[in-house]
Amino acid sequence: MLARIQHLFDDATQVTAGDSCWQGRTSEDYWAFVGPFGGATAATILRALLNHPQRTGYPLSLTVNFCAPVERGPFDLDVRLIKANRSTQHWSVEMTQNGGEVATFATAVFAARRPSWSHQQAEFPGATAFEQTLPYAKISIPWVKQYDFRFVEGEPKISATPRAAPASAYSKLWIGDRVPRKIDALSLMSMSDAFFGRVFHAKGELVPFGTVSLTTYFHVDAEDLAAEDISRVLAVADARIFRKSYSDQTGELWSPQGRLLATTHQMAYFKA
Amino acid sequence: MLARIQHLFDDATQVTAGDSCWQGRTSEDYWAFVGPFGGATAATILRALLNHPQRTGYPLSLTVNFCAPVERGPFDLDVRLIKANRSTQHWSVEMTQNGGEVATFATAVFAARRPSWSHQQAEFPGATAFEQTLPYAKISIPWVKQYDFRFVEGEPKISATPRAAPASAYSKLWIGDRVPRKIDALSLMSMSDAFFGRVFHAKGELVPFGTVSLTTYFHVDAEDLAAEDISRVLAVADARIFRKSYSDQTGELWSPQGRLLATTHQMAYFKA
Repeated sequence: MLARIQHLFDDATQVTAGDSCWQGRTSEDYWAFVGPFGGATAATILRALLNHPQRTGYPLSLTVNFCAPVERGPFDLDVRLIKANRSTQHWSVEMTQNGGEVATFATAVFAARRPSWSHQQAEFPGATAFEQTLPYAKISIPWVKQYDFRFVEGEPKISATPRAAPASAYSKLWIGDRVPRKIDALSLMSMSDAFFGRVFHAKGELVPFGTVSLTTYFHVDAEDLAAEDISRVLAVADARIFRKSYSDQTGELWSPQGRLLATTHQMAYFKA
Repeated sequence: MLARIQHLFDDATQVTAGDSCWQGRTSEDYWAFVGPFGGATAATILRALLNHPQRTGYPLSLTVNFCAPVERGPFDLDVRLIKANRSTQHWSVEMTQNGGEVATFATAVFAARRPSWSHQQAEFPGATAFEQTLPYAKISIPWVKQYDFRFVEGEPKISATPRAAPASAYSKLWIGDRVPRKIDALSLMSMSDAFFGRVFHAKGELVPFGTVSLTTYFHVDAEDLAAEDISRVLAVADARIFRKSYSDQTGELWSPQGRLLATTHQMAYFKA
């Protein structure tokens, strides 16, 4: 009998419900430099919310503040429903380790979305087909290897010597799981932190870097994603400013059919 | 003797420190439709953080989730330092009324910003001079009257009959306090929610509307703002999508000299 094998991403973002607290454990498969890939941490938090018995609706917004590096091993998630209205829920999630030290703090809004007037003003960026775009295989870090990145524009050109003048921070790329997995809110959350640091693109070198605060907005619900039935997104990312050790990043995640699925924003620390 | 008269904005966003909790009170001067102007609420929360004795550094990021309408009258702010590192602090603020009902929930990152490589990739939008731009005086709501809005592009054209086709959601405008007040982090926070609902622009009519989650990133610190010494900003705002009762908004706040001061993002509910 052939057992159904769970996707590594689902292993990596697994949580179990406790009494007042949920538990999880970091994954070697999605490890970054000094801690787990932030996108996996964010998706783990979102999974705890999606699995929560009191949850109604679908994620509308998730903000994750990375307070300290997450250490290898187990963690607790203190999940709290702050306020529920007729069609929205406000949640907070505190991730702690070693008996109470806060590593990550998140707030989320869930909504039961009703039909309305609709208008997609943003234009689909368009791209060469996924199959005609070369995979990017130049960075050998565990979490990066879990994704199939295919740069259409703005592939990072990393070298030992920084650029004389800053290059554009803009990138357009296909992102899918290396082992294909159907796109859901969890993968959108994770992929919204899967852009390489904009400072790497602008400076052309790897420098110490870490996301401090990440917010992702969801423009589709479970029904929409079921209808899309896709295993990759077309993503664009850019930055406006690098200044006094911090930079911003904005990103969009699109379905290959041209629907805007999610937008994402972050502030990141860099040392350069 | 001439007494120094406090600016209405400073009255409206006043807080006093309690034991475990801070107190404030809503302001009629910054009232919106069914509650106080969200920007004033966000600035009030930021003021409590800035005035907190344990606060170090300057705001880097503030996310405010509007959980329920804030009622007229007093409120409590439960201010909590979640985590402090060498150069950053993570805070949460819970605004409650009527003995514990949560109206607003916020998380903030403060940072002591160090010199670094810097690069402002975003281009200054440019505009006709403030003095040569007409004030906008078509909406008579208390909070709107506290600001001097001068539209360079994308003034809302509101009528009783909605447009046949959606108009652009983009706006470019000068924003200053009606009674001039030096721009600080508090006014940037408030002004980052001072854009009219993008749905009003796109549809050309006023519809029920409310910000659900607002995040503002600060790209300058106290020293930078002191050096700018300005009382107005050039602001741009846009939206990418209106769908299933929610829309996004992104905005930039610039100094008249061309420095990017803050960027802001929100998800808002609308009924249309």
